[in-house]
Order: sequence, then C-alpha cells, then structure tokens
Amino acid sequence: MALAAVAKKKPENVAADRLRSLVERIERLDEERKALGNDIRDIYAEAKSAGFDVKVLRQLIRIRKQEPAEVEEQESLLDVYRRALGM
Amino acid sequence: MALAAVAKKKPENVAADRLRSLVERIERLDEERKALGNDIRDIYAEAKSAGFDVKVLRQLIRIRKQEPAEVEEQESLLDVYRRALGM
Repeated sequence: MALAAVAKKKPENVAADRLRSLVERIERLDEERKALGNDIRDIYAEAKSAGFDVKVLRQLIRIRKQEPAEVEEQESLLDVYRRALGM
Repeated sequence: MALAAVAKKKPENVAADRLRSLVERIERLDEERKALGNDIRDIYAEAKSAGFDVKVLRQLIRIRKQEPAEVEEQESLLDVYRRALGM
C-alpha cells in the first residue's frame, strides 16, 4: 500500500488492518502446525502397519526427550509406587 | 546404504533401522511443530504490545474457524444460559 494511502486512513482503519494482518498470520501458522500434526499421525499409522506398537513408540519418544538421569529417577519411583500397591 | 549391506543385515537390525527412521521423522516434524507454536506465541505477544486484548483475539480466531450459523446458535444458547443464572 502506498504511503499516501496509509496517511489518508482513519485511525480505526489502521487498527483494523493491523488486527487483520495479525489474525491472518496466526491462522496461516496454525494451519501449518495442523498439517504437521497430520503428518505425524501418518507416520504413527505407518509405524503401526510396520508392526510397531504405537503406545510404546509414543513412550519411547517421550523418554528420548528427557534427560537419562530424569528417566532413571522416574523409573525407580514408578518401581517404588508399584511395590507400594503390590503390583 | 548399498543393497549388499542391506542384504547382509540381520532381521532385528532392519527393524531397528526402521524404528530409528520412524522416530527421527516424528521428532523432526514435532520440532517444526513446536517452532510454529513459538512463532504463534510471538505474534500474540506482538498483538498485545500493539494494544490488542489477547483473550479476545483468541476468541476471534476461534469464531472465524466456525460456521456463522454455529456461532449464532452458540451465542443464543449462551444468552439463554446467562439468563437462567440471572447474569
């Protein structure tokens, strides 16, 4: 948009343009994010048809995000809790 | 990897390679998704410093995702519920 056109705009129009631009940027990124979510779901489906257990795969990915020390601590705690319940 | 190398692999190695590839693809997409989430957060922060109310902005984006008829129906229902509670 030419500067002259911007200068002629009323303040409320400028705010509306700004708002529209923000909303459209958010919506665009949100769609990209949703598409990635679908891609990830597709990979899980692919893993499933290759014979992998999807729940265990999700757990594996969660573990890989954690520090090994944190994983170990949680595993021993889980062990303690299981014993407390006689499991 | 050369075909000869693949042919020489034990079945468990092939499954491990497949698993590693699936995990890495999921992790890569998940990182991209997280980056998009950060970008979206940045735009909300930008909107806030431009003087827009972030909660209302989120509501606006939610409304834009719905069908106008659905929005209207929910708005009249909300009105009914508010009256029921004397609000």
